[in-house]
Amino acid sequence: MTTDAARLQPMANAIRALSMDAVQAANSGHPGMPMGMADVATVLFNNHLKFDPARPDWADRDRFVLSAGHGSMLIYSLLHLTGYARPTMDDIRNFRQIGSPCAGHPENFLLEGVECTTGPLGQGLAMGVGMAMAERHLNATFGDDLVDHRTWVIAGDGCLMEGINHEAIGLAGHLKLGRMIVLWDDNNITIDGSADLSTSEDVKARYEATGWHVVSCDGHDFDDIERAIEEAKADGRPSLIACKTVIGKGAPTKQGTSATHGAPLGVDEIAGAREALGWTAEPFEVPAEILANWRATGERGSDAHGEWAGRMANSPHKAELDRRMAGDLPDLGALDEHIAGLVADPQGVASRKASEMALAAINPAVPETIGGSADLTGSNNTKAGGIEAFTADDYAGRYVYYGIREFGMAAAMNGMALHGGVIPYGGTFLVFTDYARGAIRLSALQQTRAIYVMTHDSIGLGEDGPTHQPIEHLASLRAMPNLLVMRPADAVETAECWKVALEQKDRPTILALSRQGLPQVRLDAASENMSARGAYRVKSAGSDRKVVILVTGSEMSIAIQSAEALEAEGVGVDVVSMPCTELFDEQDDAYRADILPSDALIVSIEAASTFGWQRYTGTDGLNIGIDTFGGSAPAKDLFPHFGFSAEAIVPQIQNKLNN
Amino acid sequence: MTTDAARLQPMANAIRALSMDAVQAANSGHPGMPMGMADVATVLFNNHLKFDPARPDWADRDRFVLSAGHGSMLIYSLLHLTGYARPTMDDIRNFRQIGSPCAGHPENFLLEGVECTTGPLGQGLAMGVGMAMAERHLNATFGDDLVDHRTWVIAGDGCLMEGINHEAIGLAGHLKLGRMIVLWDDNNITIDGSADLSTSEDVKARYEATGWHVVSCDGHDFDDIERAIEEAKADGRPSLIACKTVIGKGAPTKQGTSATHGAPLGVDEIAGAREALGWTAEPFEVPAEILANWRATGERGSDAHGEWAGRMANSPHKAELDRRMAGDLPDLGALDEHIAGLVADPQGVASRKASEMALAAINPAVPETIGGSADLTGSNNTKAGGIEAFTADDYAGRYVYYGIREFGMAAAMNGMALHGGVIPYGGTFLVFTDYARGAIRLSALQQTRAIYVMTHDSIGLGEDGPTHQPIEHLASLRAMPNLLVMRPADAVETAECWKVALEQKDRPTILALSRQGLPQVRLDAASENMSARGAYRVKSAGSDRKVVILVTGSEMSIAIQSAEALEAEGVGVDVVSMPCTELFDEQDDAYRADILPSDALIVSIEAASTFGWQRYTGTDGLNIGIDTFGGSAPAKDLFPHFGFSAEAIVPQIQNKLNN
Repeated sequence: MTTDAARLQPMANAIRALSMDAVQAANSGHPGMPMGMADVATVLFNNHLKFDPARPDWADRDRFVLSAGHGSMLIYSLLHLTGYARPTMDDIRNFRQIGSPCAGHPENFLLEGVECTTGPLGQGLAMGVGMAMAERHLNATFGDDLVDHRTWVIAGDGCLMEGINHEAIGLAGHLKLGRMIVLWDDNNITIDGSADLSTSEDVKARYEATGWHVVSCDGHDFDDIERAIEEAKADGRPSLIACKTVIGKGAPTKQGTSATHGAPLGVDEIAGAREALGWTAEPFEVPAEILANWRATGERGSDAHGEWAGRMANSPHKAELDRRMAGDLPDLGALDEHIAGLVADPQGVASRKASEMALAAINPAVPETIGGSADLTGSNNTKAGGIEAFTADDYAGRYVYYGIREFGMAAAMNGMALHGGVIPYGGTFLVFTDYARGAIRLSALQQTRAIYVMTHDSIGLGEDGPTHQPIEHLASLRAMPNLLVMRPADAVETAECWKVALEQKDRPTILALSRQGLPQVRLDAASENMSARGAYRVKSAGSDRKVVILVTGSEMSIAIQSAEALEAEGVGVDVVSMPCTELFDEQDDAYRADILPSDALIVSIEAASTFGWQRYTGTDGLNIGIDTFGGSAPAKDLFPHFGFSAEAIVPQIQNKLNN
Repeated sequence: MTTDAARLQPMANAIRALSMDAVQAANSGHPGMPMGMADVATVLFNNHLKFDPARPDWADRDRFVLSAGHGSMLIYSLLHLTGYARPTMDDIRNFRQIGSPCAGHPENFLLEGVECTTGPLGQGLAMGVGMAMAERHLNATFGDDLVDHRTWVIAGDGCLMEGINHEAIGLAGHLKLGRMIVLWDDNNITIDGSADLSTSEDVKARYEATGWHVVSCDGHDFDDIERAIEEAKADGRPSLIACKTVIGKGAPTKQGTSATHGAPLGVDEIAGAREALGWTAEPFEVPAEILANWRATGERGSDAHGEWAGRMANSPHKAELDRRMAGDLPDLGALDEHIAGLVADPQGVASRKASEMALAAINPAVPETIGGSADLTGSNNTKAGGIEAFTADDYAGRYVYYGIREFGMAAAMNGMALHGGVIPYGGTFLVFTDYARGAIRLSALQQTRAIYVMTHDSIGLGEDGPTHQPIEHLASLRAMPNLLVMRPADAVETAECWKVALEQKDRPTILALSRQGLPQVRLDAASENMSARGAYRVKSAGSDRKVVILVTGSEMSIAIQSAEALEAEGVGVDVVSMPCTELFDEQDDAYRADILPSDALIVSIEAASTFGWQRYTGTDGLNIGIDTFGGSAPAKDLFPHFGFSAEAIVPQIQNKLNN
């Protein structure tokens, strides 16, 4: 376990120099972490990480996650030094400026080699768990020849204090993800000062209690780092390597203090650091020999990639693995047949049940789905289509018992989707999107195909009461960029929404599904996926149109009853089903104007907050919703209690028409 | 440590009988947990819990939290049996029906004796930490004679798997909250089945690693329960008591299985359980002797309460402790003086800095505030007014270094507010409301005076980029019932908003504050707190009014510049500052109509999602906002990049006026 320290030290110092120079130039950023972890990262990239800078999309590459994303100059330095096409040195000079891919925190959509977006603490580690799960699953499916890599995570004290790390490591320990290794930047410093200000825990003992292998090293001793990594690789459990480091290592007066964490070091301190490190090159210059040594690290991976490509070319699995990694779907004819079957034999079921029926068609046809639930399998109806449990004993399984870990589940789903080759879906109650919201936002930002099966989507869940009844959740999720929120009204729409969700390569989807039974409204075969329009007419006015009712999900039957009552009095009413506002907003002007005419009273009906519906109804329209918390009672009592009945709604519409 | 098992067993069985009968009658609910923990709860309430059913508001009572809130029939049974005025047996008969205070999950606003709303797992335990913090603080302030009680929590496997429990116990262990005792219902069953499906962790070792005392007991052996509780009480650390229990204990064929968790047992199983338990009374009847034994448990507390009341009557602290526990504020003249000072000597500062200035006036005047930050003290500007750290060595301190635990902080704040006697405020970045959202919702639902100091409230935070820039957060929080979202535009409004927040006895507040400096707009002394109106005119149209600009927070100066440019071209423009939409919505019709006239073009300007603004602007208005994720660059570059400048906005308004 000896390393060539004389060669490695200047390489590590190149990271330090670039990090302090870039932060200084930007007058903003976090030099402390890259300088503290430079030695560890140098050993990792030189001796262990399997990567090919020329082929950042190599399916069998190791995944490297900088969970402590504020230390972004660490990964930008590494990508540049090892020879990735980007970032260029100009990109690094423009760290944290408009147009530079070197953003304040690493963004997966800006740079190849950045496996995921990090910065919200703890989530990188939790996404690493998902990547390691995907790796083991694809390994079980395609064999060691094609899939056999590790997931490496660099995490800071913050990542380890966040609650999500408890959920993530519990899952990883339980699933015995031995090919996951977390390098903990154990520097005892947080933004507020010494970590002792806020924590007294024995992190290593906690990880051991959770089924992890734990080893420590001196994070500034190359041989000791090497020893610890080798020990971690040899252990069958996931590993935590506690790397004892000095934050801002090299800064003569500030190292070891929170002063290096999140601010430029300053000209004088940088001059002192250069002297201490023996670094004489100009800012943003790396001496040729040091750069050559860094570029050479990529060659190891280049060879490995070549060997892998040879095995792949001769493998019967090539076409399938290529398809999966490209994110292309197989034929979805089975889902179309399922929809045709529903039209032929209508099913009045809860949309969560309809989702299960759709999954029974999808899962056999789409082998890349990996389902699961945060301990609500029987309620979310997520286990369908004959898939078996994904366990430490059988990684070929496709159903994850995530436990009571909503946030951890959502982050793992992101990690799986980012790894590629699988399409994750997972369930909990819609109200608990609150627990998972940090990861749902990263699904949207990272453009992952994560599908959230969120059941019990309104007061219709009944007796469990206000803590379990979503009110503001649909609005709060619709406000999030790049997320589809779909609330289907019946079994046909549910199947259509599932198809839309699967087809979103670059966008996550929330499926909001009812607990309670719903009549099937769509009884005719459609020539297209109507839900993909976002909104469409399910009933046209029988007489002169005065009213358009917009309705989503389980309130469809109340909308239709209201329309029928109004029609009986000579008032023409369109009923528009609106399973997805985002997709409706993407339709052309003519389509939207046809659905939302300017000469009718527009009424929205949804058993949820009315917040936001005015963008369709205007301020002169009518919004039927619930702007308080819910209540505990059977659903059949709650709906009328909160004004959801044709008897309560029709007079409001009439009143509005008459004024 | 011997107990009178012959007396206790029938008492525990009364809980079991009521629980299974109520769930059966409701045809919905969770019998397994109350039946499993009945023996433990019986020992706790008989021998340890300090409570007086006649005085549920007794300041020095022990706090009892049922973190596993789905087992609500446990607490309803206990409150009824021990003699609280409510629930009555009729209330229990109407478990989970409209109008009954016996909701599906315990709601603090429906029943005295329910210290907090539980159901969202893990949060009860985390609120217990806040209660224990408040107790130690008030003890340090008022002494052992007046404040000296414990916090007891019953938690299930779910509570211990949730990430928030990691944050909560880390804080409790660090702060050495030895008067907090968690009784863990260690039954190895979750909804999906055996806990082994999803977890392999050594929970006890994990708690020990986090600074907790851990002891185990047989949860069905009264003497052993008593022994464990005594041991926990004697230890100086917070304690976890692992109570080995059988879920649904007493149900002959279903006990020990997930079948008892969340569904009625059924008539036959209940009959078998009655036989097994030797319970012969009719449903919803408790034999007189057993009821008398239960009622006697309350007498112990009645005596203790009487002794406490005597000490209180003679204490010089009486008036102050009474005031604090009533939630009444002291004189806020210092804050008014601060505002007058700003008018006299305007301060062009970031609103986070303005918040610090307000706190410098508030904290000396309002001794019940307890501030803190989730490791962003210097960024949130939350430590002001000379308050010192709240630590294990000094519980008299009023500033909490929460660590990187946003969710745990928010839940602890709820616990403190619910305990009473303190007013908690805490900071993080606005974007990380996502991490704390589950607890923010419980602030709103529970009607707690929790004040969230959420800084870095837009793209104005600059270089940290999209992961740190709120976009949808303001909208998503405004959609939540019973929550004030306040985004002040300058130093005066910031102080006004702080005053409003302090005055909300039954409502939490989010203060959304800028990172970047803002000019002071309010330069004249106002006769009232204008921010309390929610919205008000800061500039009236100089010529015939054609446009009303609604603006919040840091975009004020852009709004004023836009208005001035339009006025220069003869277009009359009102500028309305709208720091709080919820308070504006509560104004009378005349006020709202005056601010939002129907004959003007209404324009909203906010550097955030436009979602929801149409309720004021209508569909014919103009919404200036950001409906994508942000970017990484200096704030001065980002604002124009996203269209926030008078140059970009004025032509859009002109265009709208001309069409």
